Amino acid sequence: MAGSRMKLELSKVVQGRCRLGQLKEIGRMGQHSLDIPGCLLYTHLGTVPHLTQDTLHTLSSLPTVTQVTLSNIAEHQEVLDEFKGGFKTFAGLHDTVLYCSLHDSAAHRPTGHTTNKTVSVWGSGGRIELTVAKFMALQRMVQPDWYQAMADGETWQTGTSRKRVRKSVDRSLAHLDECLLVHQKSQELDGVSVFGVVEGGDILEERLCSARETAKRPVAGFCLDGFQTGAMDQALRSQLIAAVTEELPEDKPRLLQGVGRPDEVLACVEAGVDLFEGFFPFQATERGCALCFRFDVTPDPESAVSDEERHAAGEMQPNGDLHCDDQTHMTRFEMDLKDKRHQDDFRPLVEGCGCYCCRNHQRAYVHHLLVTNELLAGVLLMMHNTSHYHSFFRAVREALANDKMDLLRRRVLGTLTE
Amino acid sequence: MAGSRMKLELSKVVQGRCRLGQLKEIGRMGQHSLDIPGCLLYTHLGTVPHLTQDTLHTLSSLPTVTQVTLSNIAEHQEVLDEFKGGFKTFAGLHDTVLYCSLHDSAAHRPTGHTTNKTVSVWGSGGRIELTVAKFMALQRMVQPDWYQAMADGETWQTGTSRKRVRKSVDRSLAHLDECLLVHQKSQELDGVSVFGVVEGGDILEERLCSARETAKRPVAGFCLDGFQTGAMDQALRSQLIAAVTEELPEDKPRLLQGVGRPDEVLACVEAGVDLFEGFFPFQATERGCALCFRFDVTPDPESAVSDEERHAAGEMQPNGDLHCDDQTHMTRFEMDLKDKRHQDDFRPLVEGCGCYCCRNHQRAYVHHLLVTNELLAGVLLMMHNTSHYHSFFRAVREALANDKMDLLRRRVLGTLTE
Repeated sequence: MAGSRMKLELSKVVQGRCRLGQLKEIGRMGQHSLDIPGCLLYTHLGTVPHLTQDTLHTLSSLPTVTQVTLSNIAEHQEVLDEFKGGFKTFAGLHDTVLYCSLHDSAAHRPTGHTTNKTVSVWGSGGRIELTVAKFMALQRMVQPDWYQAMADGETWQTGTSRKRVRKSVDRSLAHLDECLLVHQKSQELDGVSVFGVVEGGDILEERLCSARETAKRPVAGFCLDGFQTGAMDQALRSQLIAAVTEELPEDKPRLLQGVGRPDEVLACVEAGVDLFEGFFPFQATERGCALCFRFDVTPDPESAVSDEERHAAGEMQPNGDLHCDDQTHMTRFEMDLKDKRHQDDFRPLVEGCGCYCCRNHQRAYVHHLLVTNELLAGVLLMMHNTSHYHSFFRAVREALANDKMDLLRRRVLGTLTE
Repeated sequence: MAGSRMKLELSKVVQGRCRLGQLKEIGRMGQHSLDIPGCLLYTHLGTVPHLTQDTLHTLSSLPTVTQVTLSNIAEHQEVLDEFKGGFKTFAGLHDTVLYCSLHDSAAHRPTGHTTNKTVSVWGSGGRIELTVAKFMALQRMVQPDWYQAMADGETWQTGTSRKRVRKSVDRSLAHLDECLLVHQKSQELDGVSVFGVVEGGDILEERLCSARETAKRPVAGFCLDGFQTGAMDQALRSQLIAAVTEELPEDKPRLLQGVGRPDEVLACVEAGVDLFEGFFPFQATERGCALCFRFDVTPDPESAVSDEERHAAGEMQPNGDLHCDDQTHMTRFEMDLKDKRHQDDFRPLVEGCGCYCCRNHQRAYVHHLLVTNELLAGVLLMMHNTSHYHSFFRAVREALANDKMDLLRRRVLGTLTE
């Protein structure tokens, strides 16, 4: 099997689906592990936007897996080819597992450019068309520990025809088979894990077929594609994911692409998802917002603002509907620090938060950095948001371990009073 | 005298003008000192652009004095008034001397808005007109350790009429007298130092008059205004500065505004300037450039690329003319990392440089961050450029101490071969 080293150890399964455990022996040297439910570290070209490695490592709860995407990397193929040392060394990354995905879930991706033999990714210089041969040449050059096989992921829009959906399932399986063939012949990729991609749009039968067929291949795990925020509502997403994960082997991890909202993360964990991409804190940072949702289930009155106080301060956003079809809009899980009401708010972003920003600066200062377009605003927000989000995932694991998922859900949704 | 604590101790004066020494007992508590020739730390709203305090303090050779400008701060008056704790606390600055200037030398400043009673500063929200009363109210609120008095600095353009230049000298003296009057009555400003501003455009007699009259006032030191890069060539600047400093008391420091190019810094030090503003590394960062000029006078073949090598690599810029009238253009002292020739250059920005960026990343990686608009590029460049520039000032002091200014000048200009 391609990437046989990765091992999933489940310590608990709730309601037959919701899994707690550890992904072991990940990385080519098998030296790392990742707790599930878990989240990958989101990066652009290997760096968490705005943050140096040194700054990043002042944060707690960081995952051991760094995600890079081919859409960022493909246009630098020539240079990486010449560099030879692989992407981890090129980007100055140390001691992390490198996971390479096809697309960046936080970036806009035009549709309509997929053919039977190619998929397209969009870099800063425009579209790059990838055949399996080119895709695999890139993987040999990137030298990740783990990558997603090439797939046709263009069937997420509601109303895509069954014919088109089936074509995407078939193409993705064909791409996977070709990738695995090249992979097994590539000595450079020895010990590297491959995830197969489950497609199928919003059509149950196609989802089941895609899951069953992908599961027959020698993959280390599964990417669940086409479920991204905006593609469908959470009820349908949960139903499809639950049906899909039923078809997948229990001992392999499932990574969900394109879902990052805390409420959706919780619902998807309950439907059987193990891993998420970490783009959500970056999106919040880009819109000048600080994540402020609560996830404490053993409340400490010193360490968090109560929802009541927040409502009073006008911090909870009314626009937290679950069917929001635009990932770039503010959610109920964050506060808009550009808002004038923060100009004389001398509290930290989140009371009790231990991140650098909250220990050193008040909302008023970050507000002033934002309104005057100071570049430090992004640095400070990215530190806080990354820390807050990955701490949320730790809280999810703790809630699962302690049978407190109901409590956590109500806390995250703000319906828990006390 | 306003701000009587600041003391200048000269350890060496070369050719009657060029001074080496230490500014002692600066800061309201008299707890800091600053070596001269020296450079202030450039900030926007108290932060070095892109860098957190933690990141900043990983750099060596940092000055003890942080510069903020009223043009950044004035629009936040209401909030700071409400905050009360002063700007240092508001911005999360610790253990630094805060110097407050009127304008930001790296920002464009429209002219034509000065009146007999007011000067204007430009914030992100537009123009703010300051009377002396408003100016001093801002100082009481900012609570700096040291500030520049209000002055009419609009006479730097070549060809400004003598009448207009004289008016600016007279107004600036009147503003200074008014500032000192308010200062002496303000208990909040007890122990705070005031610098008077020497104006006079490019007219020698007006410069001398402005220097003599300002020197009669109880100021802690002098700002030399209207000499900024683009206003005049270096020969005229050196001549005027030498004449002005002749009129100023030897025991008080002279801060030159708006000059940051290494070659101009050296010439101005030789004309009698003690202190400079630190905006130059920020300007280089903004244009995607890394400072790479040499300033080693005891060459270590391991620690620097030779000029010869650099010429061969096409790094030395031909456009280093001394009469450049646009501060935003690239100078010969930096390399353009956006340039395609760096895309496969796997060396650090400057060989032997100990900054975080040079220890961890190659030019090729920074090039790729720049061309894909990655925000980390600014962070990394700002770290390197700040470190490089302040190390240059240390080298200037060492060269002065060891009688090697000639050698340093030739090294900086690239005319030293070996």
